[in-house]
Amino acid sequence: MKTYLDCIPCFFNQALRAGRIATDDERKIKRILDEIGMALKDIPLESTPPETGRLIYEKVREITGNHDPYKELKIESAHKALSLYHSLKQKVERSDDSLLSAIRIAVAGNIIDFGVNRSFDIEREIHEALEKDFAIYDYTKFQECLDRTDEILYLGDNAGESVFDRILIEELKKPVIYVVRAEPVINDVTYDDAILAGIDKVATIVSSGTNAPGTILTTCSSKFRKIYNDAKCVISKGQGNYEGLSDEKKPIFFMLKAKCYVIAKDIGVTEGDIVLKGINV
Amino acid sequence: MKTYLDCIPCFFNQALRAGRIATDDERKIKRILDEIGMALKDIPLESTPPETGRLIYEKVREITGNHDPYKELKIESAHKALSLYHSLKQKVERSDDSLLSAIRIAVAGNIIDFGVNRSFDIEREIHEALEKDFAIYDYTKFQECLDRTDEILYLGDNAGESVFDRILIEELKKPVIYVVRAEPVINDVTYDDAILAGIDKVATIVSSGTNAPGTILTTCSSKFRKIYNDAKCVISKGQGNYEGLSDEKKPIFFMLKAKCYVIAKDIGVTEGDIVLKGINV
Repeated sequence: MKTYLDCIPCFFNQALRAGRIATDDERKIKRILDEIGMALKDIPLESTPPETGRLIYEKVREITGNHDPYKELKIESAHKALSLYHSLKQKVERSDDSLLSAIRIAVAGNIIDFGVNRSFDIEREIHEALEKDFAIYDYTKFQECLDRTDEILYLGDNAGESVFDRILIEELKKPVIYVVRAEPVINDVTYDDAILAGIDKVATIVSSGTNAPGTILTTCSSKFRKIYNDAKCVISKGQGNYEGLSDEKKPIFFMLKAKCYVIAKDIGVTEGDIVLKGINV
Repeated sequence: MKTYLDCIPCFFNQALRAGRIATDDERKIKRILDEIGMALKDIPLESTPPETGRLIYEKVREITGNHDPYKELKIESAHKALSLYHSLKQKVERSDDSLLSAIRIAVAGNIIDFGVNRSFDIEREIHEALEKDFAIYDYTKFQECLDRTDEILYLGDNAGESVFDRILIEELKKPVIYVVRAEPVINDVTYDDAILAGIDKVATIVSSGTNAPGTILTTCSSKFRKIYNDAKCVISKGQGNYEGLSDEKKPIFFMLKAKCYVIAKDIGVTEGDIVLKGINV
């Protein structure tokens, strides 16, 4: 997805939010905003938003000296998600279509996104995602892709959310490679967060090699790019991965909640909608 | 009022909104945003937001070549307001306290602000402002100030809104100097807009000499500054004038609807509240 003009004020909002989490020093936060301001002229609209996201969070780290501002929030949301794990497993097991229920739960988990929200109510989201109609619903195509493949590449999005991903992975009944960011960026899932969520019990964890808040292939490691190129069925969670991969030419299933009106419009849905969208399938 | 960090993303939102009204050319709008980005490091938090507003709208004019992007919207909102004039006059005349009703109507008119909103419902606003409690209510002090003075300095805010100001001016029963911006900036009231609203029938219209979207005294003409310094009772409409004058040392009555959470917090009220706040009274 390209950068829309509406993304630009949002970049400054993201920087402000991240800066405030990283430090109490107003002058440092102003400097972060100033430096993003100076960099703006070199950010073409043809780039994807997470490429700029990468720059923003690099500036936050560099100027505040705080390498992982969201660390505590990430751990807190993982514990919250873990406390729900058993009851959600039961919901899935008791449902008529356990795969679909697990997808709904994984999509509900996508609300744990500090890049977009200041706060959210995960229990309300789960309740909503279990009832709500998908605005795009390529479930049959997803089942077909799943049947055909012998391995799934699962691109994780946020820490905490990965607990919900684990529930879906357990329903896929196939080997899964679970992809995490190489370094902390916003509350995106890293190796340590995936371990905390118990992903290592159900999948092979691999780093994408990027520190962007999304799968920007040009910034990923060659090792990851090979895995990606070989994959026959990709699950891509969340907005950041969608922004990076929406123009790709291989079969990808995007599972997300559209939390931003620009991304919603790009997908062709309305802000707040839940989406299971396959491309090239 | 100082510039808060939260104002910075909002500056880019304002520039984007104004850019889109001024031109359809995305590259020009991107250039406006880029240039504001480059200027950001020279905008101290000690400056008032309308000082930056002035820079933003200068950039919009310079880059798009559109001197008055809001011209049509201003005329449209003035006609809408004029169509309500007679029924509002009747409401005021039939009310128990015609001065207070006229203040409420003038505050309702403050919603006509394209710097903050994309859209608004003026009839709903009037209905609300006639019923709602003021969050700050210095009405008695205002009446006392009005009794003592032989002339009121009335700082206008937006075009269209000035029709509602006229209703209040007619209830003040004292000579009024009505102050307009020197040049078009957002949908702020200029001389022509004040004439269209019929202000010339009830007050002497004077330009502040500034092209900022607020009364920033350092950018005003010396002629206006003399009038301002001599004034014994000042009515200041809207957020832009509040931002410019909130730290002044003379009696000023701010009448506004707090449409932005930053300004609301600075005043000590909640976003959406209506305010009649006197300082140094």
